[in-house]
Amino acid sequence: MKVYEFKGFANPARVRIALHEKGLFDEVEFVHVDVLGGEHRTPEFLAKNPSGVVPVLELDDGTQISESSAITEYLDHSAGEPTLTGKNAKERAYIHMRQRKIETGLLEAISHYFHHATDGLGPQNYAHKNKEWGEYQKTVVLKTMKAMDDYLANNAFLAGNEFSIADITGMAGFAFCDFVKVETPAELTHLNAWKQKVFSRPSASVAA
Amino acid sequence: MKVYEFKGFANPARVRIALHEKGLFDEVEFVHVDVLGGEHRTPEFLAKNPSGVVPVLELDDGTQISESSAITEYLDHSAGEPTLTGKNAKERAYIHMRQRKIETGLLEAISHYFHHATDGLGPQNYAHKNKEWGEYQKTVVLKTMKAMDDYLANNAFLAGNEFSIADITGMAGFAFCDFVKVETPAELTHLNAWKQKVFSRPSASVAA
Ligand SMILES: N[C@@H](CCC(=O)N[C@@H](CS)C(=O)NCC(=O)O)C(=O)O
Ligand SMILES: N[C@@H](CCC(=O)N[C@@H](CS)C(=O)NCC(=O)O)C(=O)O
Repeated sequence: MKVYEFKGFANPARVRIALHEKGLFDEVEFVHVDVLGGEHRTPEFLAKNPSGVVPVLELDDGTQISESSAITEYLDHSAGEPTLTGKNAKERAYIHMRQRKIETGLLEAISHYFHHATDGLGPQNYAHKNKEWGEYQKTVVLKTMKAMDDYLANNAFLAGNEFSIADITGMAGFAFCDFVKVETPAELTHLNAWKQKVFSRPSASVAA
Repeated sequence: MKVYEFKGFANPARVRIALHEKGLFDEVEFVHVDVLGGEHRTPEFLAKNPSGVVPVLELDDGTQISESSAITEYLDHSAGEPTLTGKNAKERAYIHMRQRKIETGLLEAISHYFHHATDGLGPQNYAHKNKEWGEYQKTVVLKTMKAMDDYLANNAFLAGNEFSIADITGMAGFAFCDFVKVETPAELTHLNAWKQKVFSRPSASVAA
């Protein structure tokens, strides 16, 4: 298996954490894509992922899977019992729901803030920018943090009482928030305790 | 099982189609949520889905699942073999990826166009609006239609050669496009043929 990525970026981090959690980290060849230099917009890369973003997982038979949640789905079903995406219909649906809410409300929102309301990756990288939209997404991030804190008052992890793909998406989201200096309010004590807990997992060490 | 929804809206349509495809349509009690009157923002409804949107699936044990893709995941694993989300790691990942791209590029994009660039559900329904963002999302829709047409040149359905959740998301997206009068360009012949094919499935009749 190959993973096309950019080490340190948030979405590639999701796949790195999932690989480590599943014990698959050493079975993958990581291929650096020069996103800052525009390599993700070349015809070669667009043939791997028409969306023009990293990460992409390439299987030995040539199948290319993009979208970090889809890649995690593959990894979770490839090495032993699923541990990240649920074991039966109800668990699968519940975890899928929780992941999706954190993806939209935290990770995608902070990414929109970064790309639209700050210099982001530099002017040469943007054909379209909308500052007001970016600023608004920062309010979405803060609202999501509050909702996560409320949820964590009654749950050990972001999709119930076991670590899951929802926590991985949350970790990537907070790594991104740190990078763009959007802080987690100190009064969100459940959320801050969760951050401490997940970022001390061994898998966190391969993400950054 | 109960489904909280608003008949005729795009996301509830996804669940209606999935229920019909899985032979579960008659096992569900549909509960109307008065979205136009703001019922989705009441504490009662927010307790079911903190995101404040329909649809929500409520299981007999009280578990509440929101996010249409998560609900479909549940339904697909509840009645016989999975037919909508894939049978093994590779199929699951591939279909998940394809669904996600169509969800972002078509369904969410046309929804942003509707809510931000048109009157949408009426002024009382919006605390925030950004017209330029809405207009930009219309260009995303048209780009996605072209990418779908390219894909359908070599594939019978939106995630390979079998009908799947990716097609359901596509159907909901095009129902929304029709509603807001964003037309599919006539030269996208593969896409237009796919539309004819999927909208003549029996499941399409319960969506609108
Ligand atoms: N939905 C995609 C998002 C991937 C994504 O946005 N990747 C970023 C890096 S974190 C990227 O490649 N950005 C380059 C660009 O947008 O031009 C996923 O889940 O993997
Ligand atoms: N991500 C959600 C989106 C649901 C959604 O946006 N539903 C719309 C109706 S199609 C809604 O309830 N809108 C009310 C509002 O946004 O205020 C899903 O997949 O179900």
